[in-house]
Amino acid sequence: MSLKAIVLLSGGLDSSVAAAIAKSRGYDIHALTIDYEQRHGREHRAAKDVAKALGAVEHKVLKIDLSQFGGSALTDARIEVPRSRSKKAIGHDIPATYVPARNTVFLSVALAWAEAIDAEAIFIGAHALDYSGYPDCRPEFLEAFQNVSALGTKRGVEGKPVKIEAPLVHMSKREIIERGRELGVPFELTWSCYLGGEKACGTCDSCILRLEAFKEAGREDPIEYERR
Amino acid sequence: MSLKAIVLLSGGLDSSVAAAIAKSRGYDIHALTIDYEQRHGREHRAAKDVAKALGAVEHKVLKIDLSQFGGSALTDARIEVPRSRSKKAIGHDIPATYVPARNTVFLSVALAWAEAIDAEAIFIGAHALDYSGYPDCRPEFLEAFQNVSALGTKRGVEGKPVKIEAPLVHMSKREIIERGRELGVPFELTWSCYLGGEKACGTCDSCILRLEAFKEAGREDPIEYERR
Repeated sequence: MSLKAIVLLSGGLDSSVAAAIAKSRGYDIHALTIDYEQRHGREHRAAKDVAKALGAVEHKVLKIDLSQFGGSALTDARIEVPRSRSKKAIGHDIPATYVPARNTVFLSVALAWAEAIDAEAIFIGAHALDYSGYPDCRPEFLEAFQNVSALGTKRGVEGKPVKIEAPLVHMSKREIIERGRELGVPFELTWSCYLGGEKACGTCDSCILRLEAFKEAGREDPIEYERR
Repeated sequence: MSLKAIVLLSGGLDSSVAAAIAKSRGYDIHALTIDYEQRHGREHRAAKDVAKALGAVEHKVLKIDLSQFGGSALTDARIEVPRSRSKKAIGHDIPATYVPARNTVFLSVALAWAEAIDAEAIFIGAHALDYSGYPDCRPEFLEAFQNVSALGTKRGVEGKPVKIEAPLVHMSKREIIERGRELGVPFELTWSCYLGGEKACGTCDSCILRLEAFKEAGREDPIEYERR
């Protein structure tokens, strides 16, 4: 019997590489996309295409309307998405695009699904090296959540807690691209831009980090940009 | 300026008493009900009425369709809700009504809202003494989640993590009723039954524990039952 993993798949570069790593480790992929009423709903199409390309067993989209709570440029139209910042400025503090407790919410619903289908692991594309601005991408947060998985679930009580796997956590963005290339990740299907346009904007933090990473890896980013 | 608390309010006895305790400690109540497509949607009406009666500043209902995942008698119509069990049998193991990772999901979205409105605390009506069947009602789970709050949020990074308050955790069901009575909780508005009828069934685990607790407290349960 094959092992099952829930893969949190946004359709971005990182989660797509995390999915490919899960697959390379022999897991069947049960892809989970959270529709939290973010600006960049465009991502969902990418998630669907990537899940298919990587041979996911199934792909669910779960709606959780975090825009009801506000507090982030990604869910509240009144807060502007920062543009054209330097890489150094981006990593400096917690940005306006931080969505309160997002990875906690994502991991918790992934945990619910994992318990229901008896999956061994959850894969998340969090990484802390290039972009330390988000508290919920740090290894110490992921360890704390592992503890929640051990203590707050039936599988945990039975001594086989769902493992929280964050294979990118210590990788640079350049390394993520290289690993993705080795594993045949279809970069042309992925989507990272925080805005919801037909082409990626090229100026939000997410586009800037992505373009920089492809440049460092000496590769061409295959998606289209408004500006680059 | 008054302190804000997110109160996870299902409309049941426990969460209503937890809400009254939050109020007695001087917090403004921001009530949060999670509609997870459970059988007993009847609870939501109770939550709305209790929130109003306790003077909540606001009350939000957030939809998260956990029935997409299944795995529980409360969200999957194919799994039966156990009936007419003894109190001893009820506390013995993890029952079919366990919803995978439910309190983790509830606390995580409460944490998202708490961060967005700068609330100091989250109140949850979990208690472990009479009913140890649910792993995510135990003090060690709640402590693990406190750690997630400290490490995975902006408030945590700033040294003022959102506090997870579970004031009932060491109380018996009888003590919960007594505390609720002292605080003027409108028991007649609360709803505990796992089924969705117009009257409480009187035979599901939740009804049995509630009736037993009122009996032990020497009080009359003011709600109507099919059987008691």
